[in-house]
Amino acid sequence: MSQRIKIKALLESTQTDIDVTVKGWVRTFRNNQFIALNDGSTNNNIQVVVDFENTDPALLKRITTGAAISVFGLLVASLGKGQTVEVKAKTIEILGDSDPEKYPLQPKKHSLEFLREIAHLRFRTNTFGAIFRVRNSLAFAIHQFFQEKGFVYLHTPIITASDAEGAGETFHVTNFDLDNVPKADGGEVDFKQDFFGRATNLTVSGQLEGELGAMALSDIYTFGPTFRAENSNTTRHLAEFWMIEPEMAFADIVDNMDTAEALLKYVIAYALDKNKDDIEFLTQRLLDEEKQKPQNERSEMSLTEKLQFCLANDFERLTYTEAIEILKESTPNKKKKFQYPVEGWGTDLQSEHERYLVEKLFKKPVILTDYPKEIKSFYMRQNEDGKTVAAMDILFPGIGEIVGGSQREERLDKLEERMDDLGIPKDELWWYLDTRRFGACPHAGFGLGFERLVLFVTGMGNIRDVIPFPRFPKNAEF
Amino acid sequence: MSQRIKIKALLESTQTDIDVTVKGWVRTFRNNQFIALNDGSTNNNIQVVVDFENTDPALLKRITTGAAISVFGLLVASLGKGQTVEVKAKTIEILGDSDPEKYPLQPKKHSLEFLREIAHLRFRTNTFGAIFRVRNSLAFAIHQFFQEKGFVYLHTPIITASDAEGAGETFHVTNFDLDNVPKADGGEVDFKQDFFGRATNLTVSGQLEGELGAMALSDIYTFGPTFRAENSNTTRHLAEFWMIEPEMAFADIVDNMDTAEALLKYVIAYALDKNKDDIEFLTQRLLDEEKQKPQNERSEMSLTEKLQFCLANDFERLTYTEAIEILKESTPNKKKKFQYPVEGWGTDLQSEHERYLVEKLFKKPVILTDYPKEIKSFYMRQNEDGKTVAAMDILFPGIGEIVGGSQREERLDKLEERMDDLGIPKDELWWYLDTRRFGACPHAGFGLGFERLVLFVTGMGNIRDVIPFPRFPKNAEF
Repeated sequence: MSQRIKIKALLESTQTDIDVTVKGWVRTFRNNQFIALNDGSTNNNIQVVVDFENTDPALLKRITTGAAISVFGLLVASLGKGQTVEVKAKTIEILGDSDPEKYPLQPKKHSLEFLREIAHLRFRTNTFGAIFRVRNSLAFAIHQFFQEKGFVYLHTPIITASDAEGAGETFHVTNFDLDNVPKADGGEVDFKQDFFGRATNLTVSGQLEGELGAMALSDIYTFGPTFRAENSNTTRHLAEFWMIEPEMAFADIVDNMDTAEALLKYVIAYALDKNKDDIEFLTQRLLDEEKQKPQNERSEMSLTEKLQFCLANDFERLTYTEAIEILKESTPNKKKKFQYPVEGWGTDLQSEHERYLVEKLFKKPVILTDYPKEIKSFYMRQNEDGKTVAAMDILFPGIGEIVGGSQREERLDKLEERMDDLGIPKDELWWYLDTRRFGACPHAGFGLGFERLVLFVTGMGNIRDVIPFPRFPKNAEF
Repeated sequence: MSQRIKIKALLESTQTDIDVTVKGWVRTFRNNQFIALNDGSTNNNIQVVVDFENTDPALLKRITTGAAISVFGLLVASLGKGQTVEVKAKTIEILGDSDPEKYPLQPKKHSLEFLREIAHLRFRTNTFGAIFRVRNSLAFAIHQFFQEKGFVYLHTPIITASDAEGAGETFHVTNFDLDNVPKADGGEVDFKQDFFGRATNLTVSGQLEGELGAMALSDIYTFGPTFRAENSNTTRHLAEFWMIEPEMAFADIVDNMDTAEALLKYVIAYALDKNKDDIEFLTQRLLDEEKQKPQNERSEMSLTEKLQFCLANDFERLTYTEAIEILKESTPNKKKKFQYPVEGWGTDLQSEHERYLVEKLFKKPVILTDYPKEIKSFYMRQNEDGKTVAAMDILFPGIGEIVGGSQREERLDKLEERMDDLGIPKDELWWYLDTRRFGACPHAGFGLGFERLVLFVTGMGNIRDVIPFPRFPKNAEF
């Protein structure tokens, strides 16, 4: 027996007529003769040719969809279409059976909804194999991008005592017996008795802690899970998701935009290069899916074209104020086609407005900057106009906001004023304010929603399909 | 003004007599003339020479430890010791003051305990700058190692409904108002009303979900936070820590040991290469620390020597049974020097026994295998002897267990038998058992405690000093 070779390597082999050992899971078995075998190293299967006339029929019966097998045989040039090599089996060993009557994954097309119910097995489909290999490449490319630039990967805490940012509803973390929560003399929950001696929750963002690192190490980034206890049952929201949050000392909002745009292009280019077969498969999948739709609802570009277009073009940069002017004068606004008419300056943009700018008008990623301070967070740097902050959001076609960031308010008096305005407790954030007391400097950062990035690059429509085991209201299975 | 250059690049510059802009934080300012400036890109400072006779005294007064400054000047060859280049300042701008009366970090040695209280500022010290740059390199090297081998990085869930592994006490996750937890008719907590519609907790391990991925993608790894609600106030335990958990299909316990040993050597070599200055600094720090100790308690090898020794030598591999024999016959056991005498086969090894094997006997990392099944988890593969399981633990000098792993029990009947024995609910783990029902195959994996690795490579003594914001009983500050 030779050492096992992964199928990706076998299919790329330039050598033939050598003995090989290949292991994987049977996708299909045609005519008692042709096994399509996959081991997850690539979207492509290797064809194993079985000499069925000289194989024990009892063994043949066990070669079923889903079974794990080990094949020893000769790697030969293939005469069949669609493959350059195949394995002529000499011996086949069944490692693990898969009863075809019971195996939930049949060799046919299953709905994404059904596959979500069996998320423990969906990795074994072409679609999810491709998605999770692409997700892997994007994650690594993010690390590589920042490492090349000298950023320090910082693990900010998951359990925190501060929800001062007010970024959304948080999950409580406790080791109280929920049946019997200890009360203090006044009748209120006695958090002093809890594990951390105070009320704690799951983080909604590592940014504030990230800034502490940047104020010493210059450039840092986080890449970790974040949480929202929001009752959102949409195709864009998860209760648990991964976020990347770089923070750069001595950087302004323009550096911030440049870094974010460079990052997005870098990781998309990386996936296009490393996951060519996966992205081709996903492109075809999307074309097939869109054939079900009326002509006018189909995408103008295929997935691959959309990704390449994104690399080849500068993102459109404009201010919130300019965007409002454009939207006010736009045809859908004048024809009252927007659900939320754009009347004036100051309100937040709705998804329909963002889509108009990104998908109809500019037809490419858009960076909006300098939003009204009222609709943005307390830590964003106030502009000279007294009305706006140096915020930036990147909007992607089909996705909406993929990046949100800003230059940070480094001036202690301005920051405290804004915290007072918004009722944010300064004593809880003493450590955050310390960075403005000692050696403050201009700095900027952003948050990139990792699953939204994976959605964009895979062309999938539901965020629950791009994370292995999605968490959402009433669901924590697996 | 030229574009800012980071200090690491400046110090490596082969060009001199060019104008540069450098930004960072003042470490010290001597004789109104020499600024030691650091920007976190390296442990080393650049010396900025101030023409104090032609500089506004008001500005000079603001050049204090901790202040953020921007310097424009000429990069010249240095005449001073310990540096090859320095910057002759033409203009200095104060970006952020640091009142020397109030700044908690004085230009002197602070205790690690004190610095833990001001973890938001400790990044600005030489020791913690070095630690977190080394930590960064180790994290990236882990990714690079697995990517080179075709492993898929898998994000397993942080919030889970199963604590079936029984790996330790878990934190509850809930969005109940703890003041008023809803009760069902029978008086018990009505988890149906909770966010996920059931009781949920923070993960103690991503292994079980990782196996689901490996049963389709062949080789996966996780790298994420894990949690233990254990009331351990030790230098080796955290309530929140990061873990790496690879899982490999078609792999046995020997493949598992080989992969773990290769991984550890790869990442240590990577850090030695990328963080030469940091590790030299930490080596010196440890030497200085050990000078306080009596001669016989000092390490035989310096930190750098210990790391290099680890690379140059095969880890010692032996079975639990062999280890027990050795320990029984050992001098400390015979002389009753062990707190827990080693009398027979079957009990778990104590830290003192592990230390004897690793630090006194073999003087290098040790891999112990084939433990009694009673002291190991239900999912470990049962050996033919009926008594042991194919477990493996890697023990490191000064650290103890750094890796724990095993070949997994892929045989459904054996697995179910063991779950029954231990009272582990099979219905809760239906999805885990499915992987043994459909296309099971031999597979193996391990968990590497990331902070213990960082401890080893930095030579630090307390795990709270190698994670940015440690979480432990009664502490969730920052």
